Amino acid sequence: MRNIKLTIQYDGSRYRGWQRLGDTDVTIQGKIEAVLSRMTGEEIEIFGSGRTDTGVHALAQVANFKTNSNMSTGEIMDYLYHYLPEDIVVTRVEEVSDRFHARYNVKSKKYLYKIWNHKYHDPFRRKFVHHVPEPLQIKAMQKAAAFLIGEHDFASFRASKSKKKSSVKTIYAIDIVKKDPLIKITVHGNGFLHNMVRIIVGTLVEVGLGHMRPEQVKEILSKKDRSAAGPTAPAKGLYLLEVEY
Amino acid sequence: MRNIKLTIQYDGSRYRGWQRLGDTDVTIQGKIEAVLSRMTGEEIEIFGSGRTDTGVHALAQVANFKTNSNMSTGEIMDYLYHYLPEDIVVTRVEEVSDRFHARYNVKSKKYLYKIWNHKYHDPFRRKFVHHVPEPLQIKAMQKAAAFLIGEHDFASFRASKSKKKSSVKTIYAIDIVKKDPLIKITVHGNGFLHNMVRIIVGTLVEVGLGHMRPEQVKEILSKKDRSAAGPTAPAKGLYLLEVEY
Repeated sequence: MRNIKLTIQYDGSRYRGWQRLGDTDVTIQGKIEAVLSRMTGEEIEIFGSGRTDTGVHALAQVANFKTNSNMSTGEIMDYLYHYLPEDIVVTRVEEVSDRFHARYNVKSKKYLYKIWNHKYHDPFRRKFVHHVPEPLQIKAMQKAAAFLIGEHDFASFRASKSKKKSSVKTIYAIDIVKKDPLIKITVHGNGFLHNMVRIIVGTLVEVGLGHMRPEQVKEILSKKDRSAAGPTAPAKGLYLLEVEY
Repeated sequence: MRNIKLTIQYDGSRYRGWQRLGDTDVTIQGKIEAVLSRMTGEEIEIFGSGRTDTGVHALAQVANFKTNSNMSTGEIMDYLYHYLPEDIVVTRVEEVSDRFHARYNVKSKKYLYKIWNHKYHDPFRRKFVHHVPEPLQIKAMQKAAAFLIGEHDFASFRASKSKKKSSVKTIYAIDIVKKDPLIKITVHGNGFLHNMVRIIVGTLVEVGLGHMRPEQVKEILSKKDRSAAGPTAPAKGLYLLEVEY
């Protein structure tokens, strides 16, 4: 069987996240599998690099699937573009080695988080940014973020309901850039716990507002307790930016 | 009575345009009047600088209304921000001279049109740009646009159903700028006929695609016949950018 790799952009606003549920219509995985199954006449299962939650977006999610179809990658691309809903766009289709698996082979991921830091929200960006009306102190946020770089136990930055497996992860970089009034936070790491980026951002916003000192982030890490960290920032500001293999 | 001037941004996707209809819920004017009437306890009528059609957006629509309320402009702004839907944002509230009228006093207007010139559409911009997948020749479009500058009878660039009044207007400038893959067309004029910007853009796209020579724009003007011009470009790419008094 051939192994096909997809790179996918989506506006997650209308979906209950990436992962297929019973009702395939409301997930991104479900939508893509339905189109591919119709295209090939096979029952296609796609493997994503990981889940994205309800309302989270992607600029370059990666997935792969196996097929006996002899369609060219260009034909697959055109078919998907034609039959997928307008808020899901496959930007690349490649034939890859049989050994490639979009989830198991992930080396690192980058997420982007967008904050609209202005007194009033923007009517055009309202579904694509987190609106914070009070001024944020970027330098304090950068100082706080520095404490998260490296290998740490991120138990405090994990959705409290998820308790399985190790919570030790490595963050390579957190970049915080302001292009007034938009703040972009990019987080690069070898793996992410459930809601980890959103809790990191929620905590950095607390620091930016002056509700928390940058140094407190160190204490939050050492407590290994979700309740020590800041709130979970909303899904609509979060984008899966890049998956590295 | 006091005379209050509003500057307004809106995502027009959900609305049947600016002008109030019987059912006030589906127009921008209707939405704003409902909130202002509730705020003041008066029956408020607002005067916009002009209509925008179904699906057209605004970055700075201007309107005014008369009121006996003694609320400060800041209080009016906060009230509107709180009670208007998220896709309509009043960005400025000013008390102006009794003689100011948002429609009668217009000196000129600027419209912006956004074209997404890429093989594939962008899932995040799909409601805010016109997607043209084939490559557009910007220089040909600029050459064609130059024939429209100045005072002309724009009868060929007016929705065929509207036949009232003079169709002589002056266009001061048409700027076409490409920041790949986005093309921004700004049109500045002393007045605009129904669908005029959208027909201009639809015609420029025909030129950009090579379906029409730039020089044909001169002939289209002289024919004074809607059917001579290109198609009406879709509403979702159009923004009322600025109103000058």
